Amino acid sequence: MLNVAIVGASGYTGLELIRILHCHPEVAVTCLTSEQSAGKRISDVFPTLRERCDLMLENLEPIRVAEKADVIFTALPHKAAMEVVPTFMKLGKTVIDLSADYRLSDPKVYGAWYEEHLNPANLKKAVYGLPEIRRARIKGARLVANPGCYPTSIILGLAPLLKKGVIDPHSIIADSASGVSGAGRSAKVDSLYCEVNEGFKAYGVGGAHRHTPEIEQELSLLAGFELKITFTPHLAPMDRGILSTMYATPTKEVTTEKLVALYKGFYAGEPFVRVLPQGSLPSTAFVRGGNFCDIAPLVDSRTGRVIVVSAIDNLVKGASGQAVQNMNIACGFPETLGLEGLAIFP
Amino acid sequence: MLNVAIVGASGYTGLELIRILHCHPEVAVTCLTSEQSAGKRISDVFPTLRERCDLMLENLEPIRVAEKADVIFTALPHKAAMEVVPTFMKLGKTVIDLSADYRLSDPKVYGAWYEEHLNPANLKKAVYGLPEIRRARIKGARLVANPGCYPTSIILGLAPLLKKGVIDPHSIIADSASGVSGAGRSAKVDSLYCEVNEGFKAYGVGGAHRHTPEIEQELSLLAGFELKITFTPHLAPMDRGILSTMYATPTKEVTTEKLVALYKGFYAGEPFVRVLPQGSLPSTAFVRGGNFCDIAPLVDSRTGRVIVVSAIDNLVKGASGQAVQNMNIACGFPETLGLEGLAIFP
Amino acid sequence: MLNVAIVGASGYTGLELIRILHCHPEVAVTCLTSEQSAGKRISDVFPTLRERCDLMLENLEPIRVAEKADVIFTALPHKAAMEVVPTFMKLGKTVIDLSADYRLSDPKVYGAWYEEHLNPANLKKAVYGLPEIRRARIKGARLVANPGCYPTSIILGLAPLLKKGVIDPHSIIADSASGVSGAGRSAKVDSLYCEVNEGFKAYGVGGAHRHTPEIEQELSLLAGFELKITFTPHLAPMDRGILSTMYATPTKEVTTEKLVALYKGFYAGEPFVRVLPQGSLPSTAFVRGGNFCDIAPLVDSRTGRVIVVSAIDNLVKGASGQAVQNMNIACGFPETLGLEGLAIFP
Amino acid sequence: MLNVAIVGASGYTGLELIRILHCHPEVAVTCLTSEQSAGKRISDVFPTLRERCDLMLENLEPIRVAEKADVIFTALPHKAAMEVVPTFMKLGKTVIDLSADYRLSDPKVYGAWYEEHLNPANLKKAVYGLPEIRRARIKGARLVANPGCYPTSIILGLAPLLKKGVIDPHSIIADSASGVSGAGRSAKVDSLYCEVNEGFKAYGVGGAHRHTPEIEQELSLLAGFELKITFTPHLAPMDRGILSTMYATPTKEVTTEKLVALYKGFYAGEPFVRVLPQGSLPSTAFVRGGNFCDIAPLVDSRTGRVIVVSAIDNLVKGASGQAVQNMNIACGFPETLGLEGLAIFP
Repeated sequence: MLNVAIVGASGYTGLELIRILHCHPEVAVTCLTSEQSAGKRISDVFPTLRERCDLMLENLEPIRVAEKADVIFTALPHKAAMEVVPTFMKLGKTVIDLSADYRLSDPKVYGAWYEEHLNPANLKKAVYGLPEIRRARIKGARLVANPGCYPTSIILGLAPLLKKGVIDPHSIIADSASGVSGAGRSAKVDSLYCEVNEGFKAYGVGGAHRHTPEIEQELSLLAGFELKITFTPHLAPMDRGILSTMYATPTKEVTTEKLVALYKGFYAGEPFVRVLPQGSLPSTAFVRGGNFCDIAPLVDSRTGRVIVVSAIDNLVKGASGQAVQNMNIACGFPETLGLEGLAIFP
Repeated sequence: MLNVAIVGASGYTGLELIRILHCHPEVAVTCLTSEQSAGKRISDVFPTLRERCDLMLENLEPIRVAEKADVIFTALPHKAAMEVVPTFMKLGKTVIDLSADYRLSDPKVYGAWYEEHLNPANLKKAVYGLPEIRRARIKGARLVANPGCYPTSIILGLAPLLKKGVIDPHSIIADSASGVSGAGRSAKVDSLYCEVNEGFKAYGVGGAHRHTPEIEQELSLLAGFELKITFTPHLAPMDRGILSTMYATPTKEVTTEKLVALYKGFYAGEPFVRVLPQGSLPSTAFVRGGNFCDIAPLVDSRTGRVIVVSAIDNLVKGASGQAVQNMNIACGFPETLGLEGLAIFP
Repeated sequence: MLNVAIVGASGYTGLELIRILHCHPEVAVTCLTSEQSAGKRISDVFPTLRERCDLMLENLEPIRVAEKADVIFTALPHKAAMEVVPTFMKLGKTVIDLSADYRLSDPKVYGAWYEEHLNPANLKKAVYGLPEIRRARIKGARLVANPGCYPTSIILGLAPLLKKGVIDPHSIIADSASGVSGAGRSAKVDSLYCEVNEGFKAYGVGGAHRHTPEIEQELSLLAGFELKITFTPHLAPMDRGILSTMYATPTKEVTTEKLVALYKGFYAGEPFVRVLPQGSLPSTAFVRGGNFCDIAPLVDSRTGRVIVVSAIDNLVKGASGQAVQNMNIACGFPETLGLEGLAIFP
Repeated sequence: MLNVAIVGASGYTGLELIRILHCHPEVAVTCLTSEQSAGKRISDVFPTLRERCDLMLENLEPIRVAEKADVIFTALPHKAAMEVVPTFMKLGKTVIDLSADYRLSDPKVYGAWYEEHLNPANLKKAVYGLPEIRRARIKGARLVANPGCYPTSIILGLAPLLKKGVIDPHSIIADSASGVSGAGRSAKVDSLYCEVNEGFKAYGVGGAHRHTPEIEQELSLLAGFELKITFTPHLAPMDRGILSTMYATPTKEVTTEKLVALYKGFYAGEPFVRVLPQGSLPSTAFVRGGNFCDIAPLVDSRTGRVIVVSAIDNLVKGASGQAVQNMNIACGFPETLGLEGLAIFP
């Protein structure tokens, strides 16, 4: 039985980690922290947990946390994560970091999009935790940088095409829509029910979203050289889910049939990637609450363009589910442990 | 390992049974039927199930179904259930019936609210499957009538008051709101997104809803004599959930404190009923996807009235979760098996 | 052409006033204030207004406001209103106050539910602005206390019964559900999309909601003596709308038919109250964006109770629409001016 | 005063026509038809209309309709429109057709995407009713083909770029999301609340949507030669609204500043197109219920691509509002008559 701490437990990804780990047979959650709600029970913050998980929320004192846990999930805003991760690393803990702090391998890139990086030493040790692309390196890793939600949906959607050289890497456009939980649980007018409901909008258009360099880093590695993409996030009036619709120009003629076969081969044996049969398309409704990435590749025969549609639950495969998947791999558990739950519909 | 069939698998309660039983360690789903979609895979009807449950949907031929299963869940409309249950019973199967057909012990009452009862013989053998009230009789039962969604929320909400004689049984008003999944998955204008969204309405006002006699039957048993209630269902723009707000006149002076203590005592040890601490109130958001009934009793000190608020997920504790709970009890499994999943939020 | 100021224009009721007055032929909006957004254009706060109303938001300096307007709508939180209304009154302006500050005629009651009243002198002059009940007194009034949203739906729903002595005034229970816009536009976790969506809950249960004394004051006046009610508000996952379901015990036998006739008579000629024909029930979806109150009275023949269901748009008949209706009456315009717009569906 | 008939009044665009025309000072709605609901009052089908428009729905007998009206709006499915429009034309009526039947100028193209065209003679006389592009030809037109909802948002979004040769016409990708009302009011499982809510999905991917040829026809005319586009529609969980995000490769270097100036110039004086200032982005929430098209053009400086985001209410500028705008132009009324209403928020 592994002891696990969740640092930053009063946000939505923290709660989702608790929900998933509650059904994990090899893990006990022993420590939860929250700056805002320290001193309250987690079940007072999230009444879904009542009589199932009533742990007291603590202040974030890294050494105390480390005393209570073997594995630490850091579900903190960027910067706050790299302020505590070094201590956890020094004390020999395994860290799954859900922030952006260890995702960009080049601290200069981090500096350009966020701020100066405080911990380049550990950055070198961090593994980008997208299991379908980098499973071998995650095994035994001590610091896993859990991917962002948009990047997960887009990288999984495009990996086979780039790896196999099917598309012109300079032609990529990724158009995504996310549910509101991606904006977190902080009180701001823009996330109020009446502001979001019955509305659909684009934001961060023109390469302004901070997930852009993360996507480009991973797609470049897959393609074998530096590429840039056009990425447009949208906000949809729903709690959970990301759907990405991606466009690219093929380097040679392809058919939908061949693409589906390519994807089926590329993701053969993957427990959480479902390549849909020709004619089917993903919906976020079909992955809600589950750790799946549903993908449909196809060809627009009128224009010749390749289109890929992928769907995930941003809080599960896009955050906490993938984090548990990474913990399973890093710690040597079966990869699907605790993640057997089906998506919930309706 | 018990083999289980779900008859009427292409509705929302059928799907929810599959989702819950998927995590049940002692059960294998071996047979699914659907009149509308026979010949399709269940995962083509509900893509959430892809690569997890791809069983073929069959026509409902009772004898063939019985050959494949030890326990049969009938998730059919009323009347359709009592057309097949006799066969299952004759063949020695255990039946958990999610329809209304075996809930009303008096066939005349059934006749008055539905139509003539086709199977009064088995009606006598049926046990009304509300475990918190009738656990002992469910043990070993061969035919369990799984309660309706509104009745579950209202009976659990009022049972302690009636059992202990705290309220005037003629003073009960139950005002409930339900999510749209309660209306099922059939194509009708009233259930269209644009008809339901951004609207809140009452329906079946004035004692017209067919759950009324079911609620009255059980409350009368608890009170010890015949009572009638005023029950008003409402439709709320959400997928899941029932919240019932109940009003009654106390027979003697009570306080919120005493009521909370009474409820805590009455439901002590119950795994799925959570009596909230004084000052807390239930929300359907806190039970979504979980098999809980959250209850808060209190006194309106200005008018002296007793008010009880209860919340369930209509598809879980109000249908499929409770059905699995009943199966567990009837078949001798630990009652919470397969039902350990926490509610999902947001 | 009347010049109109809206004090507190950056909230939802402020915006709704602008929307309605935009189509009013006898009125020009000349001044908008907002403490939070002074210096911005209103169309930067609410982009719906772009190229239609681009006025600059000002700080609230009462004398400057009064210089620009003949009629002033105060759409402020309680207390903030009574800090500025005295100046407007002294300067001879007509004030339609959308706060709670002038609704409770007894300053002691105000003190018990809010805080000490700062302006009892004007309180005596204020008219409670429910036109269907008090039209004569609103004519020529200088200070109109615009009713609360819940009170509007409940008082209109029960007025005919109390005025005609049909029900026991001590038996009243009002169970209401509101959309989220009723909570205003301030940034708080409880109003976030993910907290509200897919949830239904009661709040302020047991006589804790501040609209309770307002409802009781008006119902008592209608009944002819002091009464108390049980009032339970609920929050529904939608932008707009209040539906109230009210219960009472009749003093003598009644039928639905007679009730409908009574209501049709009571509200004959009213432009904004629609008494539904027997068999029809209101929905908030049918009044969205319109200044209507839809009402259906009926008898639960099984228990003998009287039930009334009423629906309004909380931002229109429950706030800004009624405020314009009051302005029309107070200033001698045709009562429906600017309020001819139909409800919007879907 | 012009007499107006709405043929196909029991759908959402029919209702929206009634709502808009209700505030039009020069028009009286005198005839409503509905195959499904003939014999009922329109206010029984849509209770929003109660006591404001209680006309009886009639069967569609073209000659009788023509006797009652000068202008006829046909809000019918494709094919049904071209079965009755010839009669209306023969009888000298002005027809605003909201179906697809007269939008594609080449009957062969219509045949390829729909079925054989029944009325090529009138097709030649029809004017494609996008006022901002073709106002002069709409004046005095007898048959106006009201544009589709997606085409309106995309053509208005791209017109300045194509007209001025700013982009490579072969590089266009249009990614759109629509609210559910676009699917109409017919009872089908796919449009049920529980199927749509909390889900976001693509459909008709790869050039399968029937609006594709309509968009290409108009964009080709603007560009001056035949072009093809990649168009992907999505379904968002909301009642109303279309947001289109469009991508293209510029033919020469451009800046956001220059694009905004170009658009401001192109749409100068247009009452219903709002080109947003640099830094602002459209949302469907800001045009809900109003006849606006909000547009923001910009350059992704990292990749050099041009991106345009546009938003409309699919039922207003995307259907009934634009139809009234077309009627105003065709009949010589001021173009904004009846369309002064602001968008409704929240």
